[in-house]
Amino acid sequence: MLLVEANKLYEGKAKKVYKTENPNEVIIYYKDDATAFNNLKKGQIHNKGILNSQITTLIYDYLKKNGVETHLVENLSERAQLCKKVEIIPLEVIVRNTLAGSTAKLFKMEEGQILENPIFEICYKKDELGDPMINDYHAVALGLATKDELENIYSQTKKINELLKDLFDKVGIELVDFKIEFGKDNEGNIILADEISPDCCRLWDKETRKKLDKDRFRRDLGDIEEAYQEVLARLNKIVG
Amino acid sequence: MLLVEANKLYEGKAKKVYKTENPNEVIIYYKDDATAFNNLKKGQIHNKGILNSQITTLIYDYLKKNGVETHLVENLSERAQLCKKVEIIPLEVIVRNTLAGSTAKLFKMEEGQILENPIFEICYKKDELGDPMINDYHAVALGLATKDELENIYSQTKKINELLKDLFDKVGIELVDFKIEFGKDNEGNIILADEISPDCCRLWDKETRKKLDKDRFRRDLGDIEEAYQEVLARLNKIVG
Repeated sequence: MLLVEANKLYEGKAKKVYKTENPNEVIIYYKDDATAFNNLKKGQIHNKGILNSQITTLIYDYLKKNGVETHLVENLSERAQLCKKVEIIPLEVIVRNTLAGSTAKLFKMEEGQILENPIFEICYKKDELGDPMINDYHAVALGLATKDELENIYSQTKKINELLKDLFDKVGIELVDFKIEFGKDNEGNIILADEISPDCCRLWDKETRKKLDKDRFRRDLGDIEEAYQEVLARLNKIVG
Repeated sequence: MLLVEANKLYEGKAKKVYKTENPNEVIIYYKDDATAFNNLKKGQIHNKGILNSQITTLIYDYLKKNGVETHLVENLSERAQLCKKVEIIPLEVIVRNTLAGSTAKLFKMEEGQILENPIFEICYKKDELGDPMINDYHAVALGLATKDELENIYSQTKKINELLKDLFDKVGIELVDFKIEFGKDNEGNIILADEISPDCCRLWDKETRKKLDKDRFRRDLGDIEEAYQEVLARLNKIVG
């Protein structure tokens, strides 16, 4: 299967999606392009596509072993994954275990406070609106998901958070927060899609609280590729 | 009981609160001052205090008759109410039956769409932050309310919405949206506090959809006092 223009179904900020001969499967290709602040900041992170594809594969394999269904079928190459074709639910589902980023800003609070209970947020994935945070009533009113579908999504998200916190803790990383997306497969099942990588997680070294994630790009902290490599190397030690 | 400076406990944008000889009761005095857009727009609406006090009294009496507990003890004068002293929960609880205002703006949608299911929103009452919309997880994390307290608040709010929709419908008014606040009385009960008036509701004439609320002030539409008077007159006909 060639990843040629004619087979391209969609190109996003960080990934391209290609059709395959199987109508229920697609190939997802990870790019090096990086964006932040709703596309206002753009750049490239050397080898990011390779690193994120590998990190996502390690994490999705781990989640699968622990009973979480994902869109990942198999890894095809260093930048390409064969995945179930899903219809993405236009919600960014965010989990915060430690206060940081937009929510710290919203409350004018310092980053770094560990939350007694995780905070869950949903944002409406719509560039023209700047992906605003919404609540469950909005999601239902906008027809993005039904009440039952939201319950399903929150329930899976809670399980994913527990599994990821445990995984990262074992490799000396604090899972500060992360964003995931879900999709509906051809049978209507809601499954974890997209990616889980330093692009969409905040990952801090447990000892030093050094940032090992995309905040290094957002905040011009340097050593971005090295940070992503560090995450991959640590995960590889226990789930590789 | 004189409403003198020495007895003043608090002065807000639209009301003053005075202590009484009973430590569990306060006097709430309604001012004519009007503000909008988080205090950026300021003005006065002639007789607003009198109209809002009377409208709130009519509505709170109606709600009480229908099993909703409120802070209102009795009307003292045209601008003053004797109320239970409560500790205000710093949440603005918003109900939207028709899309308008900030939520229409957030989604870049036209005002006026009647919603199949009401949308409930909560905002964190904090001027310095601009009263941001938050979700239940934020409210709990910030210590504003417990999960059980939020459930209690939503349950009361749903009942209040049904009663108010019915009341306004009977006087030819569409209850587009409204904001309420709750407080804890000295026994820890969560009861409806603050006011329900055209200052914190969107009220449209059912036939013409003419605005009979504070949007006439926000949007410089004129005839503000007349609109508030119209609301009071219509309510007086059925619950006065």
